[in-house]
Amino acid sequence: MTNKAIILLSGGLDSATVLAIAKNQGYELYALSFNYGQRHAIELEKAKQQADAADAKEYKLINIDLRAFGGSALTADINVPKHRTSEEMQKDIPVTYVPARNTIFLSFALAYAETIGAQDIFIGVNALDYSGYPDCRPEYIEAFENMANIATSAGIKGNKIKIRTPLIDMTKAQIIKKGLELGVNYAETISCYDPGPEGKACGFCDSCLLRAKGFKECDAMDPASKNI
Amino acid sequence: MTNKAIILLSGGLDSATVLAIAKNQGYELYALSFNYGQRHAIELEKAKQQADAADAKEYKLINIDLRAFGGSALTADINVPKHRTSEEMQKDIPVTYVPARNTIFLSFALAYAETIGAQDIFIGVNALDYSGYPDCRPEYIEAFENMANIATSAGIKGNKIKIRTPLIDMTKAQIIKKGLELGVNYAETISCYDPGPEGKACGFCDSCLLRAKGFKECDAMDPASKNI
Repeated sequence: MTNKAIILLSGGLDSATVLAIAKNQGYELYALSFNYGQRHAIELEKAKQQADAADAKEYKLINIDLRAFGGSALTADINVPKHRTSEEMQKDIPVTYVPARNTIFLSFALAYAETIGAQDIFIGVNALDYSGYPDCRPEYIEAFENMANIATSAGIKGNKIKIRTPLIDMTKAQIIKKGLELGVNYAETISCYDPGPEGKACGFCDSCLLRAKGFKECDAMDPASKNI
Repeated sequence: MTNKAIILLSGGLDSATVLAIAKNQGYELYALSFNYGQRHAIELEKAKQQADAADAKEYKLINIDLRAFGGSALTADINVPKHRTSEEMQKDIPVTYVPARNTIFLSFALAYAETIGAQDIFIGVNALDYSGYPDCRPEYIEAFENMANIATSAGIKGNKIKIRTPLIDMTKAQIIKKGLELGVNYAETISCYDPGPEGKACGFCDSCLLRAKGFKECDAMDPASKNI
């Protein structure tokens, strides 16, 4: 029997690569995206396209309103910072951090996993070329996985839930290289925190800068760069 | 400065008691409820009434669609079991268990806590007179709290998040006794998993049976029993 996997799919570069990795490992794919009131809802169109292109068995889009809480440049009227250096990005937790976002996403993924009998949840967190978010670190993932196995019927019955983070130790360049090998169509991904009205990437937020650095470092052209 | 607390408020007996306990401890109250596609949406009216009666500083109702996943008698077309004995309730995880529900609720509470600078999250879980849900046990709460402090900016900065479970070791009778001492108006609570169209409790689901047993054991009249 094919193993089922939940894939958290944001429409961005990282989770598109994770989707390809899970597919390559032979999982039956159940993709999960969230409309959480983010500035960059264009990414949801991309996520759906990616799920379709990867022949996902199911694609679910969950509506949750994180704007009810605000507290982030992605979910409230706070400006997205631009033109920051790598050092500035690593120095402190930035205003684009959305409180408890990955915890909320993984909790829904856990509910989904338990209802369909999946034991593997894939998430594209990355602890190297990232924006300094606490919920992207390996120790966070480990703590969530531990909690998940105590929280659920599946965990108690010995069907251990695993949070899979294939990108966690990779640089952005390594992620892109891996994705290109697996045939990821990066033209259909968007990384920008603050895209324009037509879905064009701004080019200068942390996420755009990390993406550009990644493509540069692996000597590849960003096929989505026409959108900048 | 008054400390802020998030109170997960379901409209039921337990969380109404927790609200009174947190108020009695001097917290500024931020109540949080969820419309998650449950059968018993009548409880949301009760939750709002309770928050108002307790002079909560804020009441937030979050819409999330757990019916997107199903997998429970509370969120799918599965019958709610009736007339079960205490032994039957403890034997296995029942079909009223909603996969990852408390994890999802606590994750939203965590987001709320972090955005308003609260360190205390109150939840009315109870490991004695309960329905055998894995996410009501003390070891689950401990694992969630551990994860929460790694997940968040607050946790990292040393403002430790605490998951408060004042009812965890209490019998239903002890909970009711405590609530009556604190003036909880149990007439405005509903515990039923499967209320009728006018919000009347069924009287025979696990939750109704545990409630009735609790009132009986502390020799009190259930002021909501006219709704049965």
